[in-house]
Amino acid sequence: MFKKVLIANRGEIALRVIRTCKEMGIKTVAVYSTADAESLHVKFADEAVCIGPAPSSESYLKMSNIISAAEITNADAIHPGYGFLSENADFSRICQEHDIKFIGASPEMISKMGDKATAKATMKEAGVPCVPGSEGVIPDFETCIKVAKETGYPVMLKASAGGGGKGMRAVWKEEDLEDAWNSAKTESKAAFGNDDMYMEKLIEEPRHIEIQIVGDQDGKACHLSERDCSIQRRHQKLTEEVPSPFMTKKLRKDMGEAAVKAAEFIKYEGAGTVEFLVDKHRNFYFMEMNTRIQVEHPITEQVIDFDLIREQILVAAGVKISGKNYEPTLHSIECRINAEDPYYDFRPSPGKITVLHAPGGHGVRLDTHVYAGYSIPPNYDSMIAKLITTARTRQEAIDKMKRALDEFHIEGIKTTIPFHRQLMDHPDYVAGNYTTAFMNDFEMKK
Amino acid sequence: MFKKVLIANRGEIALRVIRTCKEMGIKTVAVYSTADAESLHVKFADEAVCIGPAPSSESYLKMSNIISAAEITNADAIHPGYGFLSENADFSRICQEHDIKFIGASPEMISKMGDKATAKATMKEAGVPCVPGSEGVIPDFETCIKVAKETGYPVMLKASAGGGGKGMRAVWKEEDLEDAWNSAKTESKAAFGNDDMYMEKLIEEPRHIEIQIVGDQDGKACHLSERDCSIQRRHQKLTEEVPSPFMTKKLRKDMGEAAVKAAEFIKYEGAGTVEFLVDKHRNFYFMEMNTRIQVEHPITEQVIDFDLIREQILVAAGVKISGKNYEPTLHSIECRINAEDPYYDFRPSPGKITVLHAPGGHGVRLDTHVYAGYSIPPNYDSMIAKLITTARTRQEAIDKMKRALDEFHIEGIKTTIPFHRQLMDHPDYVAGNYTTAFMNDFEMKK
Repeated sequence: MFKKVLIANRGEIALRVIRTCKEMGIKTVAVYSTADAESLHVKFADEAVCIGPAPSSESYLKMSNIISAAEITNADAIHPGYGFLSENADFSRICQEHDIKFIGASPEMISKMGDKATAKATMKEAGVPCVPGSEGVIPDFETCIKVAKETGYPVMLKASAGGGGKGMRAVWKEEDLEDAWNSAKTESKAAFGNDDMYMEKLIEEPRHIEIQIVGDQDGKACHLSERDCSIQRRHQKLTEEVPSPFMTKKLRKDMGEAAVKAAEFIKYEGAGTVEFLVDKHRNFYFMEMNTRIQVEHPITEQVIDFDLIREQILVAAGVKISGKNYEPTLHSIECRINAEDPYYDFRPSPGKITVLHAPGGHGVRLDTHVYAGYSIPPNYDSMIAKLITTARTRQEAIDKMKRALDEFHIEGIKTTIPFHRQLMDHPDYVAGNYTTAFMNDFEMKK
Repeated sequence: MFKKVLIANRGEIALRVIRTCKEMGIKTVAVYSTADAESLHVKFADEAVCIGPAPSSESYLKMSNIISAAEITNADAIHPGYGFLSENADFSRICQEHDIKFIGASPEMISKMGDKATAKATMKEAGVPCVPGSEGVIPDFETCIKVAKETGYPVMLKASAGGGGKGMRAVWKEEDLEDAWNSAKTESKAAFGNDDMYMEKLIEEPRHIEIQIVGDQDGKACHLSERDCSIQRRHQKLTEEVPSPFMTKKLRKDMGEAAVKAAEFIKYEGAGTVEFLVDKHRNFYFMEMNTRIQVEHPITEQVIDFDLIREQILVAAGVKISGKNYEPTLHSIECRINAEDPYYDFRPSPGKITVLHAPGGHGVRLDTHVYAGYSIPPNYDSMIAKLITTARTRQEAIDKMKRALDEFHIEGIKTTIPFHRQLMDHPDYVAGNYTTAFMNDFEMKK
């Protein structure tokens, strides 16, 4: 087993990893930017190394500084958390070269899954259902017209290097295709320095449902059931739940098998997530694979009594998995609490937390790196806490979430607590009747 | 279902009940003494009524004030929590007379189980194993000599109205019996106004293991497995766990069946606990039955995903139970965090909490009514929080507890956090090798 793990991340996920390392008797090294000196992940680690100033490019993305920190502290493994370098093939490779175990996917796997067109081609080969559309990049507009006809309208044009909705266009009829083609390419070029485009069938009333998988070094994988992440704003997940209210036993079996097939095909090592879009007829299509721990992993942990970070560490150390798939027997919901003002278009609200009272009691879990007196730096993601409730039924988990949100008391900054409180009372949410378009029509009540 | 529940208690258990009521959509009324005006149970209830000054006899034990509070707020049920009036037959009866549902045992049941000699006689009749000894009260010293001989030394002399160790004497040989008899009677008279004595065989290397039961209004009962509460100081439980490290499948089955038999024999309604002493040969003997929710109920909730307060409320409202017994599939530990200084003989340390940082994350539950800025009044029990960890194995639950205790940061007062931290490293505790005598030899490391 590893003796010392360096956590190449910040905030709640750094603290999350430190906690499990402590429980496993593994020493920890935190790295931090000058803006994060007061964060709990720094206080709770055994050692902490400052790796540079606030812009991530100068610290959390600076591979040489992180490798140096690992070398001077004698860390034998690096956990990358999510975001930053967690899906960076170069970083995974550099860790290998320095004989430091990267607790995540291999450089080859990250490369394979990081490019969307390559990922899709790989999954098609594995026999995983993919959204109909172009075979990889569309070379020119004439081919685009042909592929759109074959796929059948409505279709989506997407930037191959894309993300966050940039370089994406929905097209409902052929006469709109050329404008969409041109503008998406221009946008993609500007955003990613690359204007390769591909096409997919537009999914009707789509839900974002992902399957958590774990694979070991023998290439054996299992799935730990799904998470419904359809409630999103500008492609950012706001709240997630398991089971999905849209799930059936058969759909879970089919999606689970597809995800395990995907993982085993590429001999995936570690914890990963296979994201699917599910249409209103319960057809499901591979969207992408995330080769890292996800923000929303705790809801899976809650329903199957599994510590996923522990699992990542064990698998990275060579421990074999049992290969048993899991079915949720409980219901769990996560609300991402962001330092944003939901009454003003979710604009960021950094600043000093003057009062913090955490909710507690039966079925309530809180993952956070902030505390009373802590100043949220303006440099990073605005998420300050993940509030998770778990109960025997979905309605009880919602009722518990409402109670916990009512107890959660933060002063000094604005947070998305009022948004989640209203969401938990929204009739469509309560009915489990929502798609990825849910937030388009959502308005905060004053 | 009840529309409004008054909680006739204070502190964490009042908050605990309020939380579940909120989740069930039931309105709540808090009652409080003037010393408790700033407690969270007052802030989080829908209504709050001050019922008098700090001495409990003037407020939390003052039945007329509590009944008045229920009447003016139109509460249709009263939850008594633990302690105070929770096992007071008169209060249960007065609630009945005022047509307010007492969420607890009937006056008859409380009377039956409240007196230890009567309780034992009832359990013998039910066929539940009891400690050999006198048949009820020993009328005189001559009978005492005779009974001691029949029972076999060592024996325990106990006050019939006793509790908390008062009026209790261990006797190892006949020549010491008379002194013990006289001094125990004197002590009992002074403490309880009653010097009735009974005798029991002294149990070798005893463990305190209790079985949680729930019974419904039809007299049907089930058990929710055990809690090992052997770690006690002056008969006050300090930490509890489930499963008991001493438990076997057969012993759980036998003890569980005995507890269900006990509950069904007296047609017990609600949540209750049958406390047993288990000797080193795994013989078990009925000790007493608590006709209320216990402080340590959360560990049971954690391992069987059951909300016991919800269950109490449902049963009180006439809902039937399934009758299914539960087996723990996880391991859960509770540490009672008291405002006491473990380095100075656990002397109380009331005062103002200046800083409070709660532990969190995977497998950690915290039940507390205190917060930064809260002043702990000197008038009540010193327990300020219950820290509960849950994991797949006992060792993981211990490791998680160590991590959570390390994160738990309270300034302004002394707490028992350092005691629990040392306990979790104690080789006998870690080995699960402890009896009720454990604390006799325990010394804090400086």
